Amino acid sequence: MNEKDTSTKKTRTPRKNTSASDAPTRQRASRKKAAEENNNAPAPKTRRPRQPREVKRTPVKIIPLGGLNEIGKNMTLFECSNDIFILDCGLAFPDADMPGVDIVIPDFTYVERNAEKIRGIVITHGHEDHIGGLAYLLKKVNVPVYATRLTVGLIEGKLKEQGLYGKVQLNVVEPKKTVKMGCMAVEFIKVNHSIPDSVGMAIHTPAGVIVHTGDFKVDYSPIDGKIIDLARFGELGSKGVLALMADSTNAERPGYTHSERTVGESFDRLFKKGEGKRIIIATFSSNIHRVQQIINCAVRYKRKVAVFGRSMVNVINTAIELGYLDVPSGVIIDIEMMHRYENERIVLITTGSQGEPMSALTRMAMNDHKKVNITPMDFIIISATPIPGNEKYVTRVVNELMKSGAEVVYEAMYEVHVSGHACQEELKLMQALTRPKFFIPVHGEYKHLKKHADLAVQMGMQPENVIIAEIGNVIETDGNTMKIVSQVPSGRVLVDGLGVGDVGSIVLRDRKHLAQDGLIIIVIGIEKATNEIVAGPDIISRGFVYVRESEELITDAKMLLSHTLAGCSMAELREWNTLKGKLRDALSDYIYQKTKRSPMILPIIMET
Amino acid sequence: MNEKDTSTKKTRTPRKNTSASDAPTRQRASRKKAAEENNNAPAPKTRRPRQPREVKRTPVKIIPLGGLNEIGKNMTLFECSNDIFILDCGLAFPDADMPGVDIVIPDFTYVERNAEKIRGIVITHGHEDHIGGLAYLLKKVNVPVYATRLTVGLIEGKLKEQGLYGKVQLNVVEPKKTVKMGCMAVEFIKVNHSIPDSVGMAIHTPAGVIVHTGDFKVDYSPIDGKIIDLARFGELGSKGVLALMADSTNAERPGYTHSERTVGESFDRLFKKGEGKRIIIATFSSNIHRVQQIINCAVRYKRKVAVFGRSMVNVINTAIELGYLDVPSGVIIDIEMMHRYENERIVLITTGSQGEPMSALTRMAMNDHKKVNITPMDFIIISATPIPGNEKYVTRVVNELMKSGAEVVYEAMYEVHVSGHACQEELKLMQALTRPKFFIPVHGEYKHLKKHADLAVQMGMQPENVIIAEIGNVIETDGNTMKIVSQVPSGRVLVDGLGVGDVGSIVLRDRKHLAQDGLIIIVIGIEKATNEIVAGPDIISRGFVYVRESEELITDAKMLLSHTLAGCSMAELREWNTLKGKLRDALSDYIYQKTKRSPMILPIIMET
Repeated sequence: MNEKDTSTKKTRTPRKNTSASDAPTRQRASRKKAAEENNNAPAPKTRRPRQPREVKRTPVKIIPLGGLNEIGKNMTLFECSNDIFILDCGLAFPDADMPGVDIVIPDFTYVERNAEKIRGIVITHGHEDHIGGLAYLLKKVNVPVYATRLTVGLIEGKLKEQGLYGKVQLNVVEPKKTVKMGCMAVEFIKVNHSIPDSVGMAIHTPAGVIVHTGDFKVDYSPIDGKIIDLARFGELGSKGVLALMADSTNAERPGYTHSERTVGESFDRLFKKGEGKRIIIATFSSNIHRVQQIINCAVRYKRKVAVFGRSMVNVINTAIELGYLDVPSGVIIDIEMMHRYENERIVLITTGSQGEPMSALTRMAMNDHKKVNITPMDFIIISATPIPGNEKYVTRVVNELMKSGAEVVYEAMYEVHVSGHACQEELKLMQALTRPKFFIPVHGEYKHLKKHADLAVQMGMQPENVIIAEIGNVIETDGNTMKIVSQVPSGRVLVDGLGVGDVGSIVLRDRKHLAQDGLIIIVIGIEKATNEIVAGPDIISRGFVYVRESEELITDAKMLLSHTLAGCSMAELREWNTLKGKLRDALSDYIYQKTKRSPMILPIIMET
Repeated sequence: MNEKDTSTKKTRTPRKNTSASDAPTRQRASRKKAAEENNNAPAPKTRRPRQPREVKRTPVKIIPLGGLNEIGKNMTLFECSNDIFILDCGLAFPDADMPGVDIVIPDFTYVERNAEKIRGIVITHGHEDHIGGLAYLLKKVNVPVYATRLTVGLIEGKLKEQGLYGKVQLNVVEPKKTVKMGCMAVEFIKVNHSIPDSVGMAIHTPAGVIVHTGDFKVDYSPIDGKIIDLARFGELGSKGVLALMADSTNAERPGYTHSERTVGESFDRLFKKGEGKRIIIATFSSNIHRVQQIINCAVRYKRKVAVFGRSMVNVINTAIELGYLDVPSGVIIDIEMMHRYENERIVLITTGSQGEPMSALTRMAMNDHKKVNITPMDFIIISATPIPGNEKYVTRVVNELMKSGAEVVYEAMYEVHVSGHACQEELKLMQALTRPKFFIPVHGEYKHLKKHADLAVQMGMQPENVIIAEIGNVIETDGNTMKIVSQVPSGRVLVDGLGVGDVGSIVLRDRKHLAQDGLIIIVIGIEKATNEIVAGPDIISRGFVYVRESEELITDAKMLLSHTLAGCSMAELREWNTLKGKLRDALSDYIYQKTKRSPMILPIIMET
């Protein structure tokens, strides 16, 4: 780690952060010089960055372990000589085909196998899909983490939950600063996004500069006044960018993403419309600028603010503590104090904008919240768009809130939400500024990556210089070419309760089968010595039919099993696997014929 | 049934279709006169339909059994004196919280209890959410069904599947014609929708005229040239409409729904764009006008058409047979003949526009279709919008199709789909034409009904004259007032395989529990005479953990159970329910502590 280039919050030395001695001498010298010359923007100051083709450079490997062909669990490795660093380590939320799974994290096999090479982890911003896997990773490989101040604050919260607080070296890095990672150096570049303190990264490698945008949008009027550092992206572009890796989330959407400030303007109009009523606003807890705008409106309209939902309380506390949220004293009140104020003098900020079943807003909607009872005197704003898959949950909450007589504002027409991701025109701007030789669209499903790739080609990039990769691909570049050269282990690791990875495809298959048609257990007792049936056959079912109303079916099924057993030879009664198969097949056929269902059938033989 | 007023396809007399003798004499006389005077539009020709308040009329009950506070399973009863008729009988598709359920139908309890009063069933159009429950209803109460020609054709197909063909009296009714239902009469009125031959209904009752729009939109340039009969709605309005029941599906959307013809224009552009490639178009099988436009384009661009997907083949055959689809001879080819033509000479029409897992398009996308292999030479159009809840399925199909190199057109920007439902301006038009005294928004979740109610109030209707009802409500009107007076049994009946109603809340709860955390079975054998443990405790699990990698957990759990058993007194070993509870609690606590999961635990005791 180059201390001159990094402002660190904690001063412990990283576990292992090699000197550049592993890098080839030529590269090392030039990099050191660059770092010495340039404390603020320590990119190598070469005049002609695109060197002639004959110059061979130390190859760099880019290894995405998450975030390609999927939404979430973003994670990328950069490897050069004996140095590896990790960019982001997020989680994904389970799909409908993963019942019971809490979260999904990347497969860390390759990281564990190369633990001694890992120089650190850089984090672009504090969203779950970029930091949610970090605690699981740090339990395997404890290396220093580098992030901006708010992001470090949010990571600290997660480490506390996982009992890792104080055991991991967290370093605060300001935008424009650079962190050295062995023979590579990572420069933090301010971007706009739906959480403050987001950055993209310029990765200075022996093979050239790789720009990774992180999640970004272009906001010319951001709430904190800090516009994305377009100038630096342009500067890098004019010096020569080897490869661009850019956020594809909104690559399907034409035009520009609106400024966060437009949401504040909508809030102002809606605060007027909600006059005389209690106002309740649900949004993402991490959208601190959104919360700031709600607080600004509350101050303007002389309302007090009460905060609901664990994550909302946590994030707001962190943001206030670190100075990211400006709250005049006395504006936020304890929820126990709400009864002292008239409805029309109160704003509630709450979680639940995605209709999450356990969230504060959902509990309010279902008349299941201890402190808040929804009435026609409530004016409710859902300041979010449903994430694909959550539409039905949000709709259910809206319906229930409306049934209590509340006014609910949730549609696009009211402009109570803007995206945090760049639309097509912003993506083109990023291409035009960085003018990369190669392009790797990241963060998105295949359709997003493809659209993003098409945009780049439309702007003149050679199709063969665009790589739509998959997780686990090893993309290698020596500055002249870039190609997928091999594959490392990758995939999804399912977290269910305390179990990490113990729910796999067989367990999921069984869960889905059980959910679909339920279960029938056949129990028989067989006397060891004589091979005599001494108990059963009995039938127990769950999730199949309501047994009390299906007595005939169950009685007939038992008879069938008794007949099947009676027809078995002594040899068959001794061969339990055969016997089980016979019972299962007989019952399965019968049940399917009678019900057109295929419950899981579990024959259990007890030896006495 | 008044034969003069109805063109019937079959001539058998309805099972029971009372004369008007049940209706009060006063009403009967005037109705009979009206019917005699007016064969084409047999509404009562009273000059002043809104009679002074003091005139008492025979009350009419409106009883919705489906379609309110939900999307689907539309069904409404109209009851007057001893006559009941049913308007529509649809199905709904199961939510994520109904695993394994195939379809959902309304609760027919009230219909069964009043079977002798049911005069018939009228159907507005042939979509599943209006006819999908019909076969189940007819098995309980076999009464005549009245619908337009195409709708009858589609119902016939369903009855064949359910073994009811020929056992039910199906009557074809043309728009503008009226069916007598005891003391009420139902007039069919042409509307536009995403399936041909859709109608709304004017229900002429002793209490006044009730207009039910069915599903509708206003299309001034429909493919079959038949514009919604706005004039008749207006005529009814100027004579006096007691109540309007209108489709709320798109009540949240401002403006007008585009004409189906705009989709044809998009197809034309896309056929040009897809020149040289095979074109594949997925859409709803029932959207015959959409299919017609694809066929028109195919003819224009000299392509042959092959049809994929069982429901698509069925509907297209029915539509051709009944003259609703105009296909020049030789245009449709057998899928076995496809290989005789170049890719660029072919259009495939297929099911799967909702990403349904077993559909033809999904199987093509997953490389699992026997006849179609997707390549970069395919140009694919998904001519539909995902129904809420299906977004992820559609996205998955799009991603997979794109990975095979095909071009896929699916976004709103290409205008390859229009809705079949009226937006706000059309809903206002319907209000303005019918000028109802009372308004009951129907077909929608609460948020849709509320928005639709708000629209009516904005147009000047008294809020107390708008009724947002729930299924099971009995809404009674005597022509002067309208209110909810009582409740009849209503709800959802789940169909799983051959079982109708045998999957209830307990079965669903078990299925969800099993899906969430799986199952652990504890097996013990106890000797009857001595109360001695002669076998076990054994543990069998499914959907919990991958057992081979969790041997220690399972071994420890068995030990715990042995200890628990060892600590039991003889009395406890005799009280099996207590014993089971003890084992379940012990294991449950242990498992939760170790894994933070709560699998279903089933103790099984075998008596030998």
